[in-house]
Amino acid sequence: MRGTVLYGPRDIRFEERDAPTIVKPTDAIIRMAATCVCGSDLWPYRGINPVPQPTPMGHEYCGIVEEVGPAVTSIKRGQFVIGSFFASDNTCPNCQAGYQSSCQRAEFVGTAQAPLLRVPLADGTLVATPDVPPPDMVPSLLALSDVMGTGWFAADAANVKPAKTVAVVGDGAVGLLGVLSAQQMGAERIIAMSRHESRLKLAREFGATDIVTERGDEGVARIRELTGGIGADSVLECVGTQEAMTQAIRSARKGGYVGFVGLPHGVQLDGQELFYAHVHLHGGPAPVRRFLPQLIDLVWNEKIRPGKVFDLTLPLDQVAEAYRAMDQRRAIKTLLRP
Amino acid sequence: MRGTVLYGPRDIRFEERDAPTIVKPTDAIIRMAATCVCGSDLWPYRGINPVPQPTPMGHEYCGIVEEVGPAVTSIKRGQFVIGSFFASDNTCPNCQAGYQSSCQRAEFVGTAQAPLLRVPLADGTLVATPDVPPPDMVPSLLALSDVMGTGWFAADAANVKPAKTVAVVGDGAVGLLGVLSAQQMGAERIIAMSRHESRLKLAREFGATDIVTERGDEGVARIRELTGGIGADSVLECVGTQEAMTQAIRSARKGGYVGFVGLPHGVQLDGQELFYAHVHLHGGPAPVRRFLPQLIDLVWNEKIRPGKVFDLTLPLDQVAEAYRAMDQRRAIKTLLRP
Repeated sequence: MRGTVLYGPRDIRFEERDAPTIVKPTDAIIRMAATCVCGSDLWPYRGINPVPQPTPMGHEYCGIVEEVGPAVTSIKRGQFVIGSFFASDNTCPNCQAGYQSSCQRAEFVGTAQAPLLRVPLADGTLVATPDVPPPDMVPSLLALSDVMGTGWFAADAANVKPAKTVAVVGDGAVGLLGVLSAQQMGAERIIAMSRHESRLKLAREFGATDIVTERGDEGVARIRELTGGIGADSVLECVGTQEAMTQAIRSARKGGYVGFVGLPHGVQLDGQELFYAHVHLHGGPAPVRRFLPQLIDLVWNEKIRPGKVFDLTLPLDQVAEAYRAMDQRRAIKTLLRP
Repeated sequence: MRGTVLYGPRDIRFEERDAPTIVKPTDAIIRMAATCVCGSDLWPYRGINPVPQPTPMGHEYCGIVEEVGPAVTSIKRGQFVIGSFFASDNTCPNCQAGYQSSCQRAEFVGTAQAPLLRVPLADGTLVATPDVPPPDMVPSLLALSDVMGTGWFAADAANVKPAKTVAVVGDGAVGLLGVLSAQQMGAERIIAMSRHESRLKLAREFGATDIVTERGDEGVARIRELTGGIGADSVLECVGTQEAMTQAIRSARKGGYVGFVGLPHGVQLDGQELFYAHVHLHGGPAPVRRFLPQLIDLVWNEKIRPGKVFDLTLPLDQVAEAYRAMDQRRAIKTLLRP
């Protein structure tokens, strides 16, 4: 088969590789219905994270189970399944606590931009849909594999509740789906921070009630203005830069909550600022597995359509163009069809 | 009257000063029943915080109301009262959210090591006991003014619940009262980290079930060993140094909670470490006012005796010796009687 490999900064190739096989008895092989490019794939693509050797790419996936190892009991051949970018056994104490992305046996699933994928710990990792979905539902199910699960975790970690005021820092796919998550959790007011027309449009569609185009200290000042000088009850940090994190912490009210899901790059938090900020801080790699059953249910019953974040669809063999479009911010998120 | 003034590193004087008077109509003047020296007083005493000019000291107090301003309605002359080191109106949005130490009108109360004290925003700040207490209850009521309220906040911020495992970093008065707080909140297992015999004894009396004498990475390893490799559900950080904060974060389980109440000195948190730690982090200057009614009730009904942390009692005019004893760790905490 052919799969996606990153050779170095902006050097993405779609090339011949061995098809995956069952390596451990707990593995499954799935045939991809759709995959996509993640904002976090752009870190190594842009050379911000080093790429020491040619690296297969892709960690978002859904599709049909093609084969299972002999120890797999709950996942069956022919099922349509979704999994997270971290395989997890779903039984260890960390999984039981709802932190499957910190599973004691966690393995990163990193070769998904390909037609076939080996998924370790299949029983713990994969969740099957009630049936094979109609094709137009596939993008929304694919979104659950990472971005929607991550946006949901941001809102969950930021303690979003009915009638609360929420601010979202970051207008990438995760930030936009953070808006949708906050709306689903009953937030009364959702302030999206963005200055890009197409993203703002989607933010509004997902439930944003206010837009703040200012950034940094000016953005913080605007949030305070919109909240009677108090700050937001919940703030979702969906970027991972120092500026975004600082902005998130300063935008929250005393006793408020900051959920951070952007993988921090060079972020340092000053202890004394955090002390006087009086915020609750929680985040990390989203335990997507925790939320999959609930989110599949919401998509299946057409309550949410997170697949709207895919504003470009390409055949998988055009994966290099998919990266370029996102790198140049021509696309919010690119879906790839094998 | 004579009061305590810090002139510079290790230069504490008890000298003639003007007695306080009602300045604003919301003020009260109280006659001190007892005051004390705080661990945080040692930062400027040791020259770690600069002392640019002679500075009156003391922020822990309880006593009899001597006089109230014309706008004070709920606090009356003759009542025995306790207040926090931050005066608060108890009505602003931050107070209503339970963060009185971030009151929009907060004022630091910093001249308490004296026989008389002016307390701003008396109605919002002070809480009266049911009656004038017996003398042997005064130390425990005094402890509520800061250390017990701060230990309680650490446990509250660390989400201590019945049947949970709690670790406490710091064996000062706040850490010891964090142990007592965790015990009151129903923790099943309380791991105190200390290597000082007198402090360990008190920790055990307050409810510690396990003692860890190791520090830093070894301390973390020991906590993991005691918790089946998982880490503690709740960790109370009661010091404020980089080492203590790092130790606290690393001692918590995935999805666990760290409550930090030690005023951070030079603490920097690495964003990526915090991300992968998967902990909940909350802390800051304790909103003691939130807890005062409940804690007064516990002391009044003899459920807790936080005053046990005072292992040295001196007349107020020997305040310089009180600082010396704590600086040299000869005393956990020194009570001063006017």
